[in-house]
Amino acid sequence: MTLWGGRTSKELDEAVRRLNASLPFDVRLYGEDIDGSLAWADGLAAAGLLSAEELKAIREGLQQVRREFEEGTFESEPSDEDIHTAVERRLTELIGPVAGKLHTGRSRNDQVATDFRLWVMRACDQLDEMVTGVARALADQAEAHRDLPLPGYTHLRPAQPVTWGHWALGRAWPLLRDRDRLRAARERASVLPLGAGALAGTTVAVDRQALAAALGFERVAPNSLDAVSDRDFAAEFLFAAALLGVHLSQLAESLILFSGPEFGFVQLDEAFVTGSSLMPQKVNPDPLELARGKAGRLMGSLIGLLVTLKGLPSAYDKDLQEDKEPVFDAYDTLSKLMPALTGLVTNLSPNPERMRSGVPDEVFATDLADYLVGKGVPFRRAHRLVSEAVQRVEGEGMALSDLPLASYREIAPEFEEDLFDVFDLEASLARRSAVGGTAPGAVAEQLKQLRQAL
Amino acid sequence: MTLWGGRTSKELDEAVRRLNASLPFDVRLYGEDIDGSLAWADGLAAAGLLSAEELKAIREGLQQVRREFEEGTFESEPSDEDIHTAVERRLTELIGPVAGKLHTGRSRNDQVATDFRLWVMRACDQLDEMVTGVARALADQAEAHRDLPLPGYTHLRPAQPVTWGHWALGRAWPLLRDRDRLRAARERASVLPLGAGALAGTTVAVDRQALAAALGFERVAPNSLDAVSDRDFAAEFLFAAALLGVHLSQLAESLILFSGPEFGFVQLDEAFVTGSSLMPQKVNPDPLELARGKAGRLMGSLIGLLVTLKGLPSAYDKDLQEDKEPVFDAYDTLSKLMPALTGLVTNLSPNPERMRSGVPDEVFATDLADYLVGKGVPFRRAHRLVSEAVQRVEGEGMALSDLPLASYREIAPEFEEDLFDVFDLEASLARRSAVGGTAPGAVAEQLKQLRQAL
Amino acid sequence: MTLWGGRTSKELDEAVRRLNASLPFDVRLYGEDIDGSLAWADGLAAAGLLSAEELKAIREGLQQVRREFEEGTFESEPSDEDIHTAVERRLTELIGPVAGKLHTGRSRNDQVATDFRLWVMRACDQLDEMVTGVARALADQAEAHRDLPLPGYTHLRPAQPVTWGHWALGRAWPLLRDRDRLRAARERASVLPLGAGALAGTTVAVDRQALAAALGFERVAPNSLDAVSDRDFAAEFLFAAALLGVHLSQLAESLILFSGPEFGFVQLDEAFVTGSSLMPQKVNPDPLELARGKAGRLMGSLIGLLVTLKGLPSAYDKDLQEDKEPVFDAYDTLSKLMPALTGLVTNLSPNPERMRSGVPDEVFATDLADYLVGKGVPFRRAHRLVSEAVQRVEGEGMALSDLPLASYREIAPEFEEDLFDVFDLEASLARRSAVGGTAPGAVAEQLKQLRQAL
Amino acid sequence: MTLWGGRTSKELDEAVRRLNASLPFDVRLYGEDIDGSLAWADGLAAAGLLSAEELKAIREGLQQVRREFEEGTFESEPSDEDIHTAVERRLTELIGPVAGKLHTGRSRNDQVATDFRLWVMRACDQLDEMVTGVARALADQAEAHRDLPLPGYTHLRPAQPVTWGHWALGRAWPLLRDRDRLRAARERASVLPLGAGALAGTTVAVDRQALAAALGFERVAPNSLDAVSDRDFAAEFLFAAALLGVHLSQLAESLILFSGPEFGFVQLDEAFVTGSSLMPQKVNPDPLELARGKAGRLMGSLIGLLVTLKGLPSAYDKDLQEDKEPVFDAYDTLSKLMPALTGLVTNLSPNPERMRSGVPDEVFATDLADYLVGKGVPFRRAHRLVSEAVQRVEGEGMALSDLPLASYREIAPEFEEDLFDVFDLEASLARRSAVGGTAPGAVAEQLKQLRQAL
Repeated sequence: MTLWGGRTSKELDEAVRRLNASLPFDVRLYGEDIDGSLAWADGLAAAGLLSAEELKAIREGLQQVRREFEEGTFESEPSDEDIHTAVERRLTELIGPVAGKLHTGRSRNDQVATDFRLWVMRACDQLDEMVTGVARALADQAEAHRDLPLPGYTHLRPAQPVTWGHWALGRAWPLLRDRDRLRAARERASVLPLGAGALAGTTVAVDRQALAAALGFERVAPNSLDAVSDRDFAAEFLFAAALLGVHLSQLAESLILFSGPEFGFVQLDEAFVTGSSLMPQKVNPDPLELARGKAGRLMGSLIGLLVTLKGLPSAYDKDLQEDKEPVFDAYDTLSKLMPALTGLVTNLSPNPERMRSGVPDEVFATDLADYLVGKGVPFRRAHRLVSEAVQRVEGEGMALSDLPLASYREIAPEFEEDLFDVFDLEASLARRSAVGGTAPGAVAEQLKQLRQAL
Repeated sequence: MTLWGGRTSKELDEAVRRLNASLPFDVRLYGEDIDGSLAWADGLAAAGLLSAEELKAIREGLQQVRREFEEGTFESEPSDEDIHTAVERRLTELIGPVAGKLHTGRSRNDQVATDFRLWVMRACDQLDEMVTGVARALADQAEAHRDLPLPGYTHLRPAQPVTWGHWALGRAWPLLRDRDRLRAARERASVLPLGAGALAGTTVAVDRQALAAALGFERVAPNSLDAVSDRDFAAEFLFAAALLGVHLSQLAESLILFSGPEFGFVQLDEAFVTGSSLMPQKVNPDPLELARGKAGRLMGSLIGLLVTLKGLPSAYDKDLQEDKEPVFDAYDTLSKLMPALTGLVTNLSPNPERMRSGVPDEVFATDLADYLVGKGVPFRRAHRLVSEAVQRVEGEGMALSDLPLASYREIAPEFEEDLFDVFDLEASLARRSAVGGTAPGAVAEQLKQLRQAL
Repeated sequence: MTLWGGRTSKELDEAVRRLNASLPFDVRLYGEDIDGSLAWADGLAAAGLLSAEELKAIREGLQQVRREFEEGTFESEPSDEDIHTAVERRLTELIGPVAGKLHTGRSRNDQVATDFRLWVMRACDQLDEMVTGVARALADQAEAHRDLPLPGYTHLRPAQPVTWGHWALGRAWPLLRDRDRLRAARERASVLPLGAGALAGTTVAVDRQALAAALGFERVAPNSLDAVSDRDFAAEFLFAAALLGVHLSQLAESLILFSGPEFGFVQLDEAFVTGSSLMPQKVNPDPLELARGKAGRLMGSLIGLLVTLKGLPSAYDKDLQEDKEPVFDAYDTLSKLMPALTGLVTNLSPNPERMRSGVPDEVFATDLADYLVGKGVPFRRAHRLVSEAVQRVEGEGMALSDLPLASYREIAPEFEEDLFDVFDLEASLARRSAVGGTAPGAVAEQLKQLRQAL
Repeated sequence: MTLWGGRTSKELDEAVRRLNASLPFDVRLYGEDIDGSLAWADGLAAAGLLSAEELKAIREGLQQVRREFEEGTFESEPSDEDIHTAVERRLTELIGPVAGKLHTGRSRNDQVATDFRLWVMRACDQLDEMVTGVARALADQAEAHRDLPLPGYTHLRPAQPVTWGHWALGRAWPLLRDRDRLRAARERASVLPLGAGALAGTTVAVDRQALAAALGFERVAPNSLDAVSDRDFAAEFLFAAALLGVHLSQLAESLILFSGPEFGFVQLDEAFVTGSSLMPQKVNPDPLELARGKAGRLMGSLIGLLVTLKGLPSAYDKDLQEDKEPVFDAYDTLSKLMPALTGLVTNLSPNPERMRSGVPDEVFATDLADYLVGKGVPFRRAHRLVSEAVQRVEGEGMALSDLPLASYREIAPEFEEDLFDVFDLEASLARRSAVGGTAPGAVAEQLKQLRQAL
């Protein structure tokens, strides 16, 4: 029998029963549901609505139900609409009618909001740890091969030289921001709905602050109507997940390129690639492609929930049943993705020769313009003069460093013999020594800063 | 062993294995996968690459694998990356090394595209039928209570009177468009990828037209690179699903309102409502709320796939593994939703008294303006004169039909005694007799047209 | 001439020029662009790269350019690709070649990121103020009519009585969370990119901390590659905007319902409604409908940017040019919406009679169950007994309070004469006195808390 | 004065006026609005509601208004809420009160739906032409350099050789599907709403079939409630645009890669690239990056409209005002993008040497396995044997064609001297001669087919 059985005289239509049933997915909340019920039972007892004996029976019964879930022996019934019904039904079987006192002054509306918030808070903690794993793997990469030069890109065209350490840290900082967001999401989830009743507050003289403390919430929801309808925390979780997914997709895209034969900057470990059923030579960067592809799914989950929330009129509308699956899916997606990426990044092997040979002369063009600035040429004119040199060598299939001084002087008299010093790779790197730049010293400083943040 | 085992010297990282595994969801394609393999085996035999005996062994083996899936006795192995691997692995166990000939000239890239298209084509057919069910239920409602008057709304404010038949048909026509879109999606899915190989075409001299005919495809994909990467059909399916979801959400919203005590126009059958765990009096329109809420999920699936497809560079990228779950989820969502809605609509009971009493006098204001037009007043002036009458009665808490002729004549001399005829509800309905209007005759005609389309 | 003119020997294709031009929208950044350039000029001077005289010329020139924008006399040229080009081009016209020194060590990549962050920080402040306006209007409503009873809804069905004050505050709290998010978004935007150069850092010995302080940033971006590609702040802004849009859509939906003739709980002021071009009687709640509808647009902007960011490979890719329009549009949307809603809410007139008459007897059913709990009946059994009573009166078209005691006692012997006390509306409200409940005392406390938070 | 002026006694709140005003964007519909009004005037005259003289005045007045728009002399008033109001207001100024007869039996609800459908139909035609332009440019590329070999990719790793012609056609076929979708969208838009009135049909005895014919619609909307609320055509347009955007993003991504120094397969013409304000050497593929990035914007517009449509309750809700901007933006986005891409593709220069040198020996591995199949080895075993060969050469840094026969025979006795024939590039291409394959003959056939479809 459902928790509301007896209200209607007809049996629920079978198609509606199937549509309504949330147990297949909200069963994941069993732990949180039982935690919440234990706290509520304590609250009822403190308010004089349960005797010590009744409380004991309910507590023991709930612990028994938990064990059955943990041990996989819990058996659900077709009438178990959701995890709350399932737990109460089983509790009743175990301890009899006294179980019926547990729902006093409580509604599934405040109960599910409490369960779900607890789950999201825990999920934030777990994702935080996994993100930290990926970031740490990048920091380790940065540390191990810090000063290897490689071309830095903009518009996917060689732009200026950078170091591998700088590059790897550049992929780690976004993940630090993701951690911030996950923590902010956790904090905003940490508000207790229990005691809001169905919508108007509870008639039980329960101490909500004590409930919050018992369950690990930082604050108590200040308005019961808002408490049962607020799913901001789920939306924030999904946004944090989607943006994290974007960062992973960008990391993945770079590594797909860098590990292919055309770039060849890094080699993926064989434990992280797959082959083809048809083409015997293939080694494919599947985990990276999935990281890129799954960004879509994470965005879909975010938008799905936002759409569901749009325009809801009441404190609790059944539409809100749609809140959990996208959150679970986002968590599962990231939980599968991040450990694989952590391993992959940890086992990346940079290829110093390919990196260095990928740095073309032309990326020193900015240095050449800076050189002219040093000779007193305004930057904008310097830029145009170097453009002219670039065009000239391009036409003749030469490198900038091959153009003779005489030719440079035809372009501008400010060019002198020492212009060829700009083509020194290490010197170029070292010049970008301001905070956040790619100069080895700046990167060492940056690495220290990141390690601290981790 | 995976289908590409032997290519790399290391075992696949466990986290990557879990990330990569698609069998948990693509197992749904087993039927299509086996259909495709049967056709391919025939093709290989026709091309002289399988002997009659080999073909027989393969065919019987595949049928045996199918039976195992159907009977639930199929046992998967950890190395079964996907449904294709699982089927080939099992086939090898059953018939030995000859199974290894089946993959000649075929890749999982063209194989999975073939399977998935077949699945989508069938899903379109099934959804088409279910949409038809909802539309038919609406048509039945329209027929059964065709001429009951109720207020028609714009901006959720009473606007002009309409009939229940007109209203119900107004909710059915969008579903007819959904059927059109599902059929168009099916037709565009009906293009055979098999024979495209991994990306460049097959070296097997197979007759692709014959393959297409055997599998029920209308056309053959004209370019192998496009054939293995094209997921337009999945995106179209998801768009058709999302827009269908929008229509169901709109139907649901209307019925949530109409069945509540404030509007009270219809009553939901008790088999289609649920109660509250706390509030004994509640009867909640859960299936309607879920219909409204699930529109979000369907949109999320659509956008998720589109995002995944964005910017993919190669013929086949692993990102495409993300194509199936949103499609399956959209199908399942609609498959659970539509039968429940069909039942709910079929069992709706209109409440003629509440409908009629919901029609306020003021909705005849347009008729009153039309009346003045009939007396030669330009419409824009007529509109302003009636506005004046409306304002006047509003101030005095009266109805338009209560305002005495004298007062009307103060507003405009064109008002005469016969003005009060406009407040006749049935006459007002009958005046909107142009094609598509709410006049009983026009609705009867419309119903006939809809029945034909169904 | 573009800032890179001279690099290529051909003129830019006209279709490409039109596609690339961002001045039509990034002109909004002129103030921030000039602020950034002033700070950069100071930095160059401090680093010895500009003489005092040159600095003076540049500063005065930039102030002149700003005046031209402010006074609407700035004239753009077809070659002004973007706001940065336009400003530098005009500066050169005004002060000659010395203008060409301003771009030393700076790239449009760090420049635009700086401009855009400044703009977003200011936009957050402005939206914060507008949200506060809406929340304050709700608080004022709550205060003015605090204890008016009306039906509280779940599933859009009367559930339990609440007060208007409780309802209005329930709509205000989500906006407080939106303020939190806007502030968090602002804080995360407050990171200086300037000095990151194109991607690898600047060669100018500039003090980035001083730059940050001068421009009002709290921190300096720690990695130049990340600094020029990071658009998390824009995504966070758009998420905060989208969720705010969701809350406004929910507020709007409720008020559309409550102000219609069927509910009739509130009246919209005539300055906030519109009419129909055809139907003289109509008064439509347009601003509320637009609030509901525009949630879609805000979500579209969010998802659009996230998609654009997906899989970007380099530090700066031109795709990032797509970052500004969704942010501007979200800001404009909310800036137009919130003042209208503030006015509308401020001018709402509750209709106490309709509110009270909308509270049906049946909403005391929970109180009736609680009554039985008080008599020692376990809640679950109490729920079923009251359900029975509800069914009985429903069948006979009666109200719960009309059912005679004898009938109640047939259902359960625990019912006694005092059961009829539960139908006292004020007493029912008062019973929900726990923190966050609808009891007048609790709401008074809540209002105080909200006022403090504002 | 607005079209409904006089209904309310207060002036519209200024913030609401600004929020409501749609003229800034719906002014684009002026042509369609006037077309619709001309047809409606004819209809009114045919129904006897306008005299010949009145009709003439209205027609001439409308033509005058159109001229003012075309010549840019139309001046709007603050009270011009929307294009319909603006046109009627100006018409009244020009021809006096007879203008007030034009709105007889018509509402802005059916009027705007008519205007917007006409606009979308024309937009479909224009986009169709532009898509055809891109597809034709690809076909021209395919034809001009049809048989140039280059590596074909899956997972962005060299997979099997293909030809440039095959590749280019592989990018054209998706655009053909986009054309199909645009045409289907156009066809489904081609349904006349005019005559549906505000929601319930018109009282004017107008011949809607004649109206449809006059305006170029194929069918008449069968239900007035549906007619004024149906925005499926706009959603379909946006979906077609978004999927087209996906295809352009994929084309762009490939070309960004292929035109960079690492792949080097093609060269972009200098008229289609841009430079850097800081780095003198840069030539950036901006139009391609914008093509990739704008996919996000197009998806955002699609989802935005779908969200807006979700859950709308009435025939016409003001939320629908949000329908036009995403459609206009999608059209503008694609209209700016496609001509630039057409030019870019037309002016692409393939680099045959880089293409050919990009084809590594290892891509013949499938051919090698096929070779073994030809010797009677089941494919699955052949795959493993060749994998072994690949692993062996990989370890020794050799190419497959360098491995001596003896070594091959150690792997499998079926290898014979003729195995080395598989490394013939042209022969490998020629082997994939089945329909849709990359063999020159098959591509020639394919090109013919595509030309026909264009």
